[in-house]
Amino acid sequence: MREHDHIKVIARMCRICMRELEHNRKYPHAKLIRLGIGDTTHPIPPIITSAMAQHVYGLSTVQGYRGYGAEQGNMELRKAIAETFYNDLGVKGSEIFVSDGAQCDISRLQAYIDTGVIIGQAGKFMEETGKYQNIVYMNCSPENNFFPDLSNTPRTDIIFFCSPNNPTGNAASKQQLEQLVEIARANGSIIIYDSAYAAYITDDSPKSIFEIPGARQVAIEISSFSKFAGFTGVRLGWTVVPEELLYSNQYPVIKDFNRVVCTCFNGASSIAQAGGLACLSPEGYLALNGVIDTYRENAKIIFDTFASLGFKVYGGKNAPYIWVQFPGLRSWDVFAEILEKTHVITVPGRGFGPGGEEFIRISAFGDKNGVLEASRRLRNLFK
Amino acid sequence: MREHDHIKVIARMCRICMRELEHNRKYPHAKLIRLGIGDTTHPIPPIITSAMAQHVYGLSTVQGYRGYGAEQGNMELRKAIAETFYNDLGVKGSEIFVSDGAQCDISRLQAYIDTGVIIGQAGKFMEETGKYQNIVYMNCSPENNFFPDLSNTPRTDIIFFCSPNNPTGNAASKQQLEQLVEIARANGSIIIYDSAYAAYITDDSPKSIFEIPGARQVAIEISSFSKFAGFTGVRLGWTVVPEELLYSNQYPVIKDFNRVVCTCFNGASSIAQAGGLACLSPEGYLALNGVIDTYRENAKIIFDTFASLGFKVYGGKNAPYIWVQFPGLRSWDVFAEILEKTHVITVPGRGFGPGGEEFIRISAFGDKNGVLEASRRLRNLFK
Repeated sequence: MREHDHIKVIARMCRICMRELEHNRKYPHAKLIRLGIGDTTHPIPPIITSAMAQHVYGLSTVQGYRGYGAEQGNMELRKAIAETFYNDLGVKGSEIFVSDGAQCDISRLQAYIDTGVIIGQAGKFMEETGKYQNIVYMNCSPENNFFPDLSNTPRTDIIFFCSPNNPTGNAASKQQLEQLVEIARANGSIIIYDSAYAAYITDDSPKSIFEIPGARQVAIEISSFSKFAGFTGVRLGWTVVPEELLYSNQYPVIKDFNRVVCTCFNGASSIAQAGGLACLSPEGYLALNGVIDTYRENAKIIFDTFASLGFKVYGGKNAPYIWVQFPGLRSWDVFAEILEKTHVITVPGRGFGPGGEEFIRISAFGDKNGVLEASRRLRNLFK
Repeated sequence: MREHDHIKVIARMCRICMRELEHNRKYPHAKLIRLGIGDTTHPIPPIITSAMAQHVYGLSTVQGYRGYGAEQGNMELRKAIAETFYNDLGVKGSEIFVSDGAQCDISRLQAYIDTGVIIGQAGKFMEETGKYQNIVYMNCSPENNFFPDLSNTPRTDIIFFCSPNNPTGNAASKQQLEQLVEIARANGSIIIYDSAYAAYITDDSPKSIFEIPGARQVAIEISSFSKFAGFTGVRLGWTVVPEELLYSNQYPVIKDFNRVVCTCFNGASSIAQAGGLACLSPEGYLALNGVIDTYRENAKIIFDTFASLGFKVYGGKNAPYIWVQFPGLRSWDVFAEILEKTHVITVPGRGFGPGGEEFIRISAFGDKNGVLEASRRLRNLFK
C-alpha cells in the first residue's frame, strides 16, 4: 500500500484500517480482497486522459495558458452537463455550478451531518441513541421499502436525500420522489438531492429529482464525475440550483449560492474541467459506460452470491453497493467474521448510522477476478 | 475575450468589467492594456506540465490509476513543501495540509471578511464607515509604514495578516512581525498569515511567519502555488498548522483542522499535486524563478514610471503589485481618467476597503510589451 493511500484510509475509516493492519500481521500471507472502500479502481478511458493531457500541454503555451476561470465553471462544460444529464428537464447551463466534487458543495450547503456538527447547528449528540438533537433521521430500511413515512416525519428546513443511496444501493421510485417533492412544497422545505450514483441506474427509477414535476421550485441537486467517470482523484462535480427555487421572502436561492461560490471557491481545476468535457463527448460517454458495465457485472456477482445463500440482499441493481442483512447480528461482528474466515474486507453498516446495525455494505468497485474469488470464499463460509 | 473569462470577470469585479465594456463600445479600435486583474499570464514551464501530463496518462493504466488521495494531500508533496519553503524552520510534512488554493482554506478558516459575513459573524455593516461591526480593521498606510499600531489595536480572537500584501505590495519586516507575534502571544490570539506572494520577496523581509521565534505557538500560514507557479487555474495551495498551536483549553488546533479538512474536503486534484511536486524539483523551481523574474521586471518598469513622474509609489519590490497614491483624489475618478486617456485598466484602491480611497493598484502580471506600452501612455498622461 502506498503511503498516501495508507494515510487516507486511516483518516477516512480508522477503525476498519486498524482491523486490516491487525489482520495483515496475523495472516501475512493471506490474499486480502478489499470490497470495503467506496473508491473507483478502473483506469480512465484514454480519450478522456488525452483531452486532459492536451489541456495540460497547452498551459505551457501562450495561446493555451489559462489562469483563473469562472468560479461557476467553464460555460461550455456547464452547458454540456445540462444537455447530457438534464436534456428535456429544462435545466440551463447557467443553473449548473461546477465544483471540485460533491463533498465540497455539500459542505458549502451545510447539509451533511458531520459538516452540520462542525458549524454547530446539529445540536447535542445523544449517547443513548447515537443521534444529534436538531436532526430528524428518516429511517430507510427494508420494512419501509427504503423510503420514509413522510406523513410521520417532522418538518425541517432542509431535506437531505441521496438516491441511488449509499450505503443501501436503493434507488427511489418516481412515485416516492413525487411524495418527497409534494411534502417539500407543502412545508416550504428545500430538498438537497444527491444523485452522485445516478449513472448506475438500470431500471426506470428517476436519474434526477428534476424528472419530478414541481421539483424546480423546491430542490437543489448535487452530483459528481467521481463515480461516473472514475474522477475520485481528479475532483469534479456539479450542483444544480434552479432559478425557480426561492426563499420564503421570494429571493432566489441561485443568487445566494452564486455569491457563496464566488466568495469561498476559485473554481475547479481547469484540467479536471477539460476532462469533464471529454467525458460528455459521444466517444467519452460511450467509453465510460463500458467501465460502469464492468462494475455492474461485479455488483451482480456479489448480489447473486448472497441471494443464492439465502440472505436478504438489497441494492446492486441501481448502484455499485450491495447491502446484505444479517438479522439479529451486530455489523462489526459480521465484518470481523468475514475478514477472519475469508480475508475479505467489507464495511459494517453501523458506520453509516444506527439504522445500519444488522447490515454490511459490499462495494462493486473492485476488479472482476477479486470479486469472483471473494464470491467463492463467501460461498464456502456461508454454505 | 473568451466566454468563461468574461463571466469570471463579471462575477469577480463587476463594476470594473462594466466600465471596460462601456469603454470598448466608446473606443472600439483602442488597444486596451489590462493591468488590473491579479491573475498570472505567463505559460507554465514545460517541465511542470510534462509531469502533470505523465500523471494524467498514467490514470488510463492499471498501475498509474489513482482514486481518492489523502484529504491532507500526498505525503511526498507535503514533505517537499516543508523542505522547500520551511527548511530550518522546523515545519514537518505532517503539519502541511495541501489545498485546492489559498482561497478555499481561507474560507474554511472563516477569516476573510466576505466569508465571515456569509456565515454571519462579522456583525452589522455600518453604512457611514463602510465597515462591519465585529471586525477590527488594522489600518496599513504609508503614514504607519504599512504596519498597524498594535498598542492601540483591540484584542481579537483571530488576526488576519497578509504579507507581501495585496493590494499595497508591501512586505512586513522581521521587526514588525516580531511585534505581531508578541501581541498574539500576549493576547492569546491566532494569527492567520497569508504568504501567497512570498516568492516575490527580493529583500530580507521574512518569507514565512515561522521565521519569527515563538510563531509556532500562535500562527497558521496559508500559501499557494497560484502566483508562485502560475497555478491560478490549476488550483493548488497549502496551509501550515504547527503542532504547538493550542486552543486555550490546550487542545491542538491541528487536530481540529485535520477534522475539518477530512470532513469538508476530498483533497486537491491528484493532477495538480503531481504538478506541485514538479514545481519543487530543482529544475522546476529554477524555471519558475525565471517566470517570476519577468513579472519583477514588469513591476520595476511600472514602479519607475510613476516614481519618475513624482508620484508616491509603494510595493513592486517584494510583490507583483504597485500601489500609487493620488492625494486628495477618489480612486474611481483616477481609474476612470487613466482608462479614458490611456486605455489602461487599473484597480481603484477603494475596492480593497476604505483605506484605499486615494490609491490605485497596478498589477505586474502582464506581458512586457503591454507594460512598456502602458508606461509610455501613462508618462504622456501625467508628464
